[in-house]
Amino acid sequence: MKPNDLPNPTSTPWTLARRAERMNPSVIREILKVTEKPGIISFAGGLPSPKTFPVTAFADACAKVLREDGQAALQYAASEGYAPLREAVAAQLPWAVDPAQVLITTGSQQGLDLVAKVLIDTDSRVLVETPTYLGALQAFTPMEPHIEAVASDDEGIDVADLERRVGSGADRARFLYVLPNFQNPTGRSMSEARRAALVASAAALGLPIVEDNPYGDLWFDQPPPLPLSARNPEGCIYLGSFSKVLAPGLRLGFIVAPPSVYPKLLQAKQAADLHSPGFNQRMVAEVIKDGFLDRHVPTIRALYKSQCAAMLACLAQDMAGLDVQWNSPDGGMFLWLRLPEGMNAVELLPRAVDKGVAFVPGAAFFADAPDERTMRLSFVTASVEQIRIGIAALALAIREQQGN
Amino acid sequence: MKPNDLPNPTSTPWTLARRAERMNPSVIREILKVTEKPGIISFAGGLPSPKTFPVTAFADACAKVLREDGQAALQYAASEGYAPLREAVAAQLPWAVDPAQVLITTGSQQGLDLVAKVLIDTDSRVLVETPTYLGALQAFTPMEPHIEAVASDDEGIDVADLERRVGSGADRARFLYVLPNFQNPTGRSMSEARRAALVASAAALGLPIVEDNPYGDLWFDQPPPLPLSARNPEGCIYLGSFSKVLAPGLRLGFIVAPPSVYPKLLQAKQAADLHSPGFNQRMVAEVIKDGFLDRHVPTIRALYKSQCAAMLACLAQDMAGLDVQWNSPDGGMFLWLRLPEGMNAVELLPRAVDKGVAFVPGAAFFADAPDERTMRLSFVTASVEQIRIGIAALALAIREQQGN
Repeated sequence: MKPNDLPNPTSTPWTLARRAERMNPSVIREILKVTEKPGIISFAGGLPSPKTFPVTAFADACAKVLREDGQAALQYAASEGYAPLREAVAAQLPWAVDPAQVLITTGSQQGLDLVAKVLIDTDSRVLVETPTYLGALQAFTPMEPHIEAVASDDEGIDVADLERRVGSGADRARFLYVLPNFQNPTGRSMSEARRAALVASAAALGLPIVEDNPYGDLWFDQPPPLPLSARNPEGCIYLGSFSKVLAPGLRLGFIVAPPSVYPKLLQAKQAADLHSPGFNQRMVAEVIKDGFLDRHVPTIRALYKSQCAAMLACLAQDMAGLDVQWNSPDGGMFLWLRLPEGMNAVELLPRAVDKGVAFVPGAAFFADAPDERTMRLSFVTASVEQIRIGIAALALAIREQQGN
Repeated sequence: MKPNDLPNPTSTPWTLARRAERMNPSVIREILKVTEKPGIISFAGGLPSPKTFPVTAFADACAKVLREDGQAALQYAASEGYAPLREAVAAQLPWAVDPAQVLITTGSQQGLDLVAKVLIDTDSRVLVETPTYLGALQAFTPMEPHIEAVASDDEGIDVADLERRVGSGADRARFLYVLPNFQNPTGRSMSEARRAALVASAAALGLPIVEDNPYGDLWFDQPPPLPLSARNPEGCIYLGSFSKVLAPGLRLGFIVAPPSVYPKLLQAKQAADLHSPGFNQRMVAEVIKDGFLDRHVPTIRALYKSQCAAMLACLAQDMAGLDVQWNSPDGGMFLWLRLPEGMNAVELLPRAVDKGVAFVPGAAFFADAPDERTMRLSFVTASVEQIRIGIAALALAIREQQGN
């Protein structure tokens, strides 16, 4: 049968699910397309520095895995993940974790997708920080929750506002999603006091916490306080990632979940992609098995610390006299900048791109009314020389915009 | 704060989503645990033969990718997939496919998950074959559809029954899910006449088709008829996989979707895991780029054909005098066996395992009332000698069960 023998329906036969209407292309992704012009210095990306990828260690691991265990590495495997990798994950975490509670995921983004499937009903409530990780909003949205932003300051979640918003009975929020360490987008971290208060409050309220920690190992001078999950493992799901300490292109992350939720996350994982690539899991297990991360991650920390310092120095110099505010992160990949009153980061972007520099306007990261004056700046992929040129260009764009 | 400072809630704080109640461990997975005792000859698995995995070609490709393109291979990448791989997929398909319509997925299982998210609303209707792939039922279920089985015979879907079940208006089925080639679990294929009739009927009814084709390349003597998608690309989503022609442990599959659905599948993909591993995509693109599959896949076909012939010969010999029926597939990995009247494959399994042989009872593959007499037998992972011993043991178990 040739296609032109077919009836020619006047409209497409496809009926999209209601949730598809709420799914939209990432604003950041669209912005990145604009800013990927040649010659643009970009502080917009969320990528780790490729200089930090241990290419040689991976090459050695690949060769060894395929030589010694090739057929098993290339076969279907358990949905839970490769046992030695689950054990290595459990062993590196700063609280007592049974490897049976570790689920290997296809990047920690998949952890968010599985959490959403298992915990979110249509019209149920989910609480997030202000602002929060855009990818989490995208992962939760298809399950059609009401996402509610909890007030947050430089130390993290405002616990009093959280308590007002939890709700009770059927209306109780399903969970609080929070990134306590060097948060994306702001780079801020939760203080020890705030963590203690948050965990106590959430436990008293019966509010589960989903703790996302992709950046926690990237501290500059001292490790961040203990994860929330370490303080109440039964009340928390913990999401981790190899993307920032090894490389994102292998797409490997993990979930640590209490026994009351783990089996459903596992079933959701099985339905989603059967298992994460066994070959990649063996590569990572091979690379990290002899304390490699203890030697490798400090080199990332040192690089990112010096890059951050360079950006802060340029900001201090070039933004002088402008009513611009920014924070000074203790780790991670991002800092957060706030433009003078009356300015709008989305409106500033085209002028900045004209001057050769790009950033992500902060508005995309807000679940509720955005602060239009904010922007996220990554300090990890541009060189120090590019940072110098790029921050100067950004300052010039702000001055010109202000003069309009 | 120590955990014992926390309030001790009497119940878990976790409230599971309604869909989680419908998610259950794979019956097959549970059966496989029972049958993984040492010494058991298993016809139960759905695994390809690891003998067919091109380990050396992968080792060469890994080394080359990391040497020539390591940093890009290990970095975050586009959600659509690696452009040369999308082009290679489009080029190998037997109809005109624009690479822009190809979405690389984390195994074709993820294709099912994305299709479910984008096309299924709670309580909407989805049509499947009788029986059908269990993994598809698991992928669709979290979106809470009513899954309805369409009558099927040895040539595939019963088109008259399909037309009765499509429905209209808001009740119209969202799609028909079908595996036309060497179907899992039965091994059967749709005839040319049935394909033509199905595509014409679906187009006239405005019923979209989701065509799953993981086994189509594994034909024994002649290629199967053209895919349904080739006959009406706008009305079909096509799912393909590298798991059976290269190796499943890399978790790479693909979707070909019409422009009216592709953008939403892409957004769902981005939210689910950002992208499939770029390293793996480059490995596969490197391995297949010089016609490798044209040389490699015939070796898989030859192996599986001889394994299938061995199992058929043993069945003919050992089941003589028993009222057992089985089919003779033209390709793929499975055949389908039906026990004598009054027997039940689930009840037979423990006796078979006692005799050292395992299979999957067919009941798990039915979306509606199961045929309890059926079982799926894989002929690809056991050796010919194991097939001889295993089929004899199975025949003995049937005889004994019948004598009870």
